[in-house]
Amino acid sequence: MSCIVQKFGGTSVADIDCIKMAAKRVVAAYNSGNQMVVVVSAMAGVTNNLIELTEQVNGIFDVREYDVILSSGEQTNAGLMALAIQDLGIQARSWLGWQLPIKTDSKYGRARITEIDISQIKKRIENNEVAVVPGFQGLSKENRITTLGRGGSDLTAVAIAGALSADRCEIYTDVDGIYTCDPRIVSKAKKLEKVTYEEILELASQGARVLQARSVELAKNYGVRVEVKSAFTDTPGTQVVSEDEILEKEVVSGISYSSDEAKITLRRVKDQPGVAARIFGPLADASVNVDMIVQNVSEDGKTTDLTFTVTAKDLNHAKEVLSEKKSKIGFDELVSDSNLSKISIVGVGMRSNTGVAKTMFNTLAKKNINIKVISTSEIKISVLIDTEYTELALRALHSAYGLDQ
Amino acid sequence: MSCIVQKFGGTSVADIDCIKMAAKRVVAAYNSGNQMVVVVSAMAGVTNNLIELTEQVNGIFDVREYDVILSSGEQTNAGLMALAIQDLGIQARSWLGWQLPIKTDSKYGRARITEIDISQIKKRIENNEVAVVPGFQGLSKENRITTLGRGGSDLTAVAIAGALSADRCEIYTDVDGIYTCDPRIVSKAKKLEKVTYEEILELASQGARVLQARSVELAKNYGVRVEVKSAFTDTPGTQVVSEDEILEKEVVSGISYSSDEAKITLRRVKDQPGVAARIFGPLADASVNVDMIVQNVSEDGKTTDLTFTVTAKDLNHAKEVLSEKKSKIGFDELVSDSNLSKISIVGVGMRSNTGVAKTMFNTLAKKNINIKVISTSEIKISVLIDTEYTELALRALHSAYGLDQ
Repeated sequence: MSCIVQKFGGTSVADIDCIKMAAKRVVAAYNSGNQMVVVVSAMAGVTNNLIELTEQVNGIFDVREYDVILSSGEQTNAGLMALAIQDLGIQARSWLGWQLPIKTDSKYGRARITEIDISQIKKRIENNEVAVVPGFQGLSKENRITTLGRGGSDLTAVAIAGALSADRCEIYTDVDGIYTCDPRIVSKAKKLEKVTYEEILELASQGARVLQARSVELAKNYGVRVEVKSAFTDTPGTQVVSEDEILEKEVVSGISYSSDEAKITLRRVKDQPGVAARIFGPLADASVNVDMIVQNVSEDGKTTDLTFTVTAKDLNHAKEVLSEKKSKIGFDELVSDSNLSKISIVGVGMRSNTGVAKTMFNTLAKKNINIKVISTSEIKISVLIDTEYTELALRALHSAYGLDQ
Repeated sequence: MSCIVQKFGGTSVADIDCIKMAAKRVVAAYNSGNQMVVVVSAMAGVTNNLIELTEQVNGIFDVREYDVILSSGEQTNAGLMALAIQDLGIQARSWLGWQLPIKTDSKYGRARITEIDISQIKKRIENNEVAVVPGFQGLSKENRITTLGRGGSDLTAVAIAGALSADRCEIYTDVDGIYTCDPRIVSKAKKLEKVTYEEILELASQGARVLQARSVELAKNYGVRVEVKSAFTDTPGTQVVSEDEILEKEVVSGISYSSDEAKITLRRVKDQPGVAARIFGPLADASVNVDMIVQNVSEDGKTTDLTFTVTAKDLNHAKEVLSEKKSKIGFDELVSDSNLSKISIVGVGMRSNTGVAKTMFNTLAKKNINIKVISTSEIKISVLIDTEYTELALRALHSAYGLDQ
């Protein structure tokens, strides 16, 4: 007997028909002899509606009340899912975040899970009941509802799977897996049967938004086997596994992109300790998310140019913050550029292969695509290019790395 | 400094504009130096939508999950109301049923409050915070959400007011008080400044549905001063008070009616102990609500006719139940009649006045209205007449008892 956690995202439980279809999937797995825990999101659109209501009342709102309001969407669906499963003749019961409880810290609106009491769930699933848990919600030390931030239902599912030592955690969504590239752009993109935690982390945070990044980290830490699947078909999905489960590692597993990038270069920044803190501290305080950071060695030993990227919508805010602090930071000039795309090739096999970067640069050069910034990690190479070349670059790279099949 | 509980019904918090208007009312009372507790219903229509979703999933549903689903509407509004009050510069915090907790028995879907822990509310309001509590919800011994049945938010408000020994409990709704009769039918109906618990109980259960009956009982038991007011005007409402607060008691305070009545007569029922139990036991088991029951003295000492009323929609079901049990109950014939209205005159002054019934019968006789059944209590006389005479009877009685002003 296996223990399986199935998580259904907003589009998979968007209305009563979807909920019934999801319930059938749960019951099929149950009838195959598995212990079942179901994690549900709110119906697609419900959370956004609740946010809108909240903003209509009060622009700068109290996140404690925001959490009370937002968590109601998942609560409703947990009850409906339990009823839908019962309707198929199987005992089911909902367990809200405060009820288990799923304990979190007190960072309302983006709380982190600190501990899950799975005793109720364990008792019930051992007693042949299906346990239904609303995603996205927990309980703070102050005995108040917290929410876990966007995509938090993935986190709930993985955390429960980890706490239960479940055999796997199936994430049902409106795509049927992780692809080598966005199939809407690269028609030859193919679905990956397996992908490592590290790879999906890079792929997910770079535009292939299928699985929330924090939930992947958690899955990796607890060794939870995650599978991303379509809620609407019966095709196999993509398994997220640890590296040692993939024998023949692809040099490049996938290519991701994000097209709302902007870059800021500070010219002739003083090349001395503490300067980076003086730049990125105020940006963090202003909630500007900085992504790639590139600093070249100093030519004269005194000053250097420092380049980094932010999302296009944060660009003006970032410029304001830095201009205000210009004298304190100490730089000559701020140059910015928007309408940029970041293209990343990702693969755990990259570590043991030379020439991966060369292939990327050659491929882009052949298409006359200018690389503005390069940044690399152990399993990823990212470049910044003009947005208008995005599709061209993705298709050329997909082909160059042998991903077309 | 007074302590006031304000309860806002579904139409009073139907959208963000309504919620903001209600919040202004709360803050005005707060700024006059009162300690404030606010009880909110779900937005008008939301609870019905949730019930509909529930029924779409599963016709015969598990009430435990129904309660999880339904309570989400009030939860959302509690958060929104807290934000709306905060937006006006006053500290406010929501407290859900499970959080206080409001303890109830385990009759899910129609739970009764057993105990309210008001320590959190007390601490907060003494600290100049407004406490916002969602109506209609509580917590069972099994640590699960319960709901209190239709109109349950009134109950929450009165129970909290009782537990806090609040100075008054204001019920905001879409009517501006209790009238001597339905103003849509009797144009001369006037708003009552004061009404006793007993009177409103009779008036409310007989068609003037303004305040849930159980909440009135509770208010009476705990001596909570209730005031029914309009959420949309600033006119004074109707105060619900104990009898000794009304010095000059009106003989008849108001006239109520309900027009979906049906009557069943069982002819020649055996006049012996236990027969009533054999009739009404099965009806209660079948959830048929029986209202007036009239049994005449037996003519021959052996059999009698027994008449009672049910709502029109229950008539067929009641007939089925009784026909099935015919031999066990022992009666000759079942005669039924629908399209009936019940007209009730209500007033605590009735006790010390003779001739009240005579006026009623004379008035109806003068208009050639046939009385089918009569039933009386200490402060009420009810008659059953053909529905087509409803308006005529109400106007004639309103005038006969000097209520036209």
